[in-house]
Amino acid sequence: MSDTSAFCDAAQRLLGERGFTRDADIMASWLTDWRGRYTGKALGLASPANTREVADLVKLCARYGVPIVPQGGNSGMSGGATPDESGASVILSLRRMNAIRHFASEAMQITCDAGLVLQTLHDTVEAEGLRFPLTLGGKGSATVGGLIATNAGGTQVLRHGNMRAQVLGLEAVMADGSVFDALRALKKDNRGFDLKQLLIGSEGTLGIVTAATLRLLPGIAERAVLWAGVNDIRTARRLLLHAQRHAPQALEGFEVIPRHSHDAVMRYSPDSRPPLAGPHHWHVLIELVADRAAAASLADLARSLLETAMEAELIEDATIAQSEAQAEAFWTIRDSISPAERAIGPAMQHDIAVPVEDMADFIAETVPKVESAFPGVRAVAFGHLGDGNVHFHAIAPEGARPGAWEAEQGKTVSRFVHDEVTAWRGTISAEHGIGQMKVEELARLADPAQLALMRAVKQALDPAGILNPGKLVRLETEGKSL
Amino acid sequence: MSDTSAFCDAAQRLLGERGFTRDADIMASWLTDWRGRYTGKALGLASPANTREVADLVKLCARYGVPIVPQGGNSGMSGGATPDESGASVILSLRRMNAIRHFASEAMQITCDAGLVLQTLHDTVEAEGLRFPLTLGGKGSATVGGLIATNAGGTQVLRHGNMRAQVLGLEAVMADGSVFDALRALKKDNRGFDLKQLLIGSEGTLGIVTAATLRLLPGIAERAVLWAGVNDIRTARRLLLHAQRHAPQALEGFEVIPRHSHDAVMRYSPDSRPPLAGPHHWHVLIELVADRAAAASLADLARSLLETAMEAELIEDATIAQSEAQAEAFWTIRDSISPAERAIGPAMQHDIAVPVEDMADFIAETVPKVESAFPGVRAVAFGHLGDGNVHFHAIAPEGARPGAWEAEQGKTVSRFVHDEVTAWRGTISAEHGIGQMKVEELARLADPAQLALMRAVKQALDPAGILNPGKLVRLETEGKSL
Repeated sequence: MSDTSAFCDAAQRLLGERGFTRDADIMASWLTDWRGRYTGKALGLASPANTREVADLVKLCARYGVPIVPQGGNSGMSGGATPDESGASVILSLRRMNAIRHFASEAMQITCDAGLVLQTLHDTVEAEGLRFPLTLGGKGSATVGGLIATNAGGTQVLRHGNMRAQVLGLEAVMADGSVFDALRALKKDNRGFDLKQLLIGSEGTLGIVTAATLRLLPGIAERAVLWAGVNDIRTARRLLLHAQRHAPQALEGFEVIPRHSHDAVMRYSPDSRPPLAGPHHWHVLIELVADRAAAASLADLARSLLETAMEAELIEDATIAQSEAQAEAFWTIRDSISPAERAIGPAMQHDIAVPVEDMADFIAETVPKVESAFPGVRAVAFGHLGDGNVHFHAIAPEGARPGAWEAEQGKTVSRFVHDEVTAWRGTISAEHGIGQMKVEELARLADPAQLALMRAVKQALDPAGILNPGKLVRLETEGKSL
Repeated sequence: MSDTSAFCDAAQRLLGERGFTRDADIMASWLTDWRGRYTGKALGLASPANTREVADLVKLCARYGVPIVPQGGNSGMSGGATPDESGASVILSLRRMNAIRHFASEAMQITCDAGLVLQTLHDTVEAEGLRFPLTLGGKGSATVGGLIATNAGGTQVLRHGNMRAQVLGLEAVMADGSVFDALRALKKDNRGFDLKQLLIGSEGTLGIVTAATLRLLPGIAERAVLWAGVNDIRTARRLLLHAQRHAPQALEGFEVIPRHSHDAVMRYSPDSRPPLAGPHHWHVLIELVADRAAAASLADLARSLLETAMEAELIEDATIAQSEAQAEAFWTIRDSISPAERAIGPAMQHDIAVPVEDMADFIAETVPKVESAFPGVRAVAFGHLGDGNVHFHAIAPEGARPGAWEAEQGKTVSRFVHDEVTAWRGTISAEHGIGQMKVEELARLADPAQLALMRAVKQALDPAGILNPGKLVRLETEGKSL
């Protein structure tokens, strides 16, 4: 009997019928990332039912030297949950572990398994008048464990921070199968290194998140959604500062949309209607929220914010959503930009950030720079101006061949954009992580001292390199297969 | 020439007259911690002028195997900045590095050297209408670097978090003399492990913090300071929940004070006056704050908070400070508890936390448990109920001999208290860190898996063990001296 079958037999005994499969049909949909960019092979798909089973499986993998690819909702943006093509790894799915372990609504905390889907989390806490202040497009599939492993962002980071800011406690299985238990939510704990912070955002390369305790907030009683047209991106930045000063307690979202993206959405979704009558170079979507205590005055706040911004000549035109349906319609425009831009043709997408105060200047200078370096390419930046984080798309020249363009000129354009970001001392991955997509670019552009530190930490916590090898940071020794 | 003199000569050449001294008089005050609990010896006192000099000195120490004890204001609570008695280490003082590198008041950020004193930071940003939302008793000496190395707490953690929450960017020198530069404040950055988080709270054992970028908040326009008497600690906990619901945007501090501590302060400070007329088992000090936008309604909010709490029968009596002087007087009572309790006689102090929702039960059950296990000993818990963190003092029986009691029964009492905290799955160090004071208790009580992880990280980042050896977590290999 080969090592492979010995391992699979042992995994089967350990996890039972539901817990381990090598069935090609069942495995198929988990071997490719949701955007269809990466496809791999796997020895099997493990779906443990609890933390103990995860720990036992990791010990088994360590014994046989089988690499592990942890996977939640398989909705990551950088291929971090897709195995390589060797077929030597096992996919460790956390989806079966989706229990809510403890919901302390008075303390505004919830403890849940890693496989809980974000939408379910939202629904559960909203039923008790609370909210979980992080959301994103993939909420119907993204799991708590995946959100933690990738330190996910979304549209509420401006006010509430990314996933790191929501995690009060954490449980994880380490590379040797030991259980790291820091699930208890201590508001203050200075017993040495905060290893929980190291696991958040480590993309399954240092440990496998199995459960978390998350903070909750009082539910929203009221929201005001505003749409404004401004003349240039630097004015949008001044409007952001104005909104932060005017409504510091209420400002929840501040998204910028260039005319190109606005018009692309109007063409792409025939049902969508422009919020403002005239054309504007830049559009700004602002959300203000209030809990019950502050709800009464929210409409006044929204009005006075726009009035003072007009007096300061920051805004050309603006409107406030008159109903929840209209508010949703405004957000749908924002959320349709990616598919609308994609419908135009091939494009390279970049998830970048520079310091918040520099982003307007970065856009104003880098967009023409890219367009002049690559004639026919159009650069479009939209998104979270309040976080200094935009999605920077470089759209192929008209007539470019899909597939071929990305692999050829597109790659050169991406390196150009990443070089610009690095010159501004920004990041080539603001919220999507490194995965396998950006592992070479990280190695090319990161500070060598920081890369060395990451490798030292990876080497210390996963010396055999069995946890998600080939992702984020590569070791010499990793990926020993059977 | 011995290795020692060769090292000292080289250090002298590197740092110059002001930068390196072996003068016993100059060194003396830095060889003992401010509470006078720990005294050590040192080869010399290095005071580099900038990050480059720190890096060069660390390289020199690495070459000669000289251990380094980083030191800021020398106002730590756990002996983390005091060298051992071998005299083999060099004290690396950051106090000469106290420049403000960049103050971006519009972006509400400041970048400063590690040696900047907290009080100076407060004064600098307040002059621009901003505030730095962390303060503590030692603000006249505590430095930014020390606050980061110990992840300091204070009385505003309830609303604003501890030091970790204030740090947007960090610069540090690692054990090999390389410079870790993550000073640029990116609101979102998912390029792998967040090593900055690992350095925060590592007490100089993984790297030496040389600079930081910190977040600032709009200055306070108004505050309301409330004093309430309640009947028991569980009611205090219900009052906390009430205040969090009633004034979620304004609640800044929530401190509990037992009758014993209240009365001790009244005896200790003859000028102090009781805020309330009658006796109460527990006192609660509440601070509400408002920025300019919300200042108008703050007095109303304070009044309605107390009225509704009285209707709910949470409060026996209460008062609102009628002037800034009275507000200061209320806080002075709170800040006088430690010296007042100390004036009574020997005591063991414990800096502990359990989850916020469990702290009232913990106090209600543990105080009588300690007092019955050790007849004559009195247990007193006071402080940050809103953080689930209290200072738990065990006061020696009357007539106990100072010095002897702490070394004998005191030690047993401390182990008893720490065992109780551990049974509640709390922490034996909520805000003061481990230093040398709690290194044995941490080794005794911590989860072995977590200790092993900490050792693995320490081993990976400081393999020769030259950074603050003997503190926080001990390695076999560390502390190689000349």
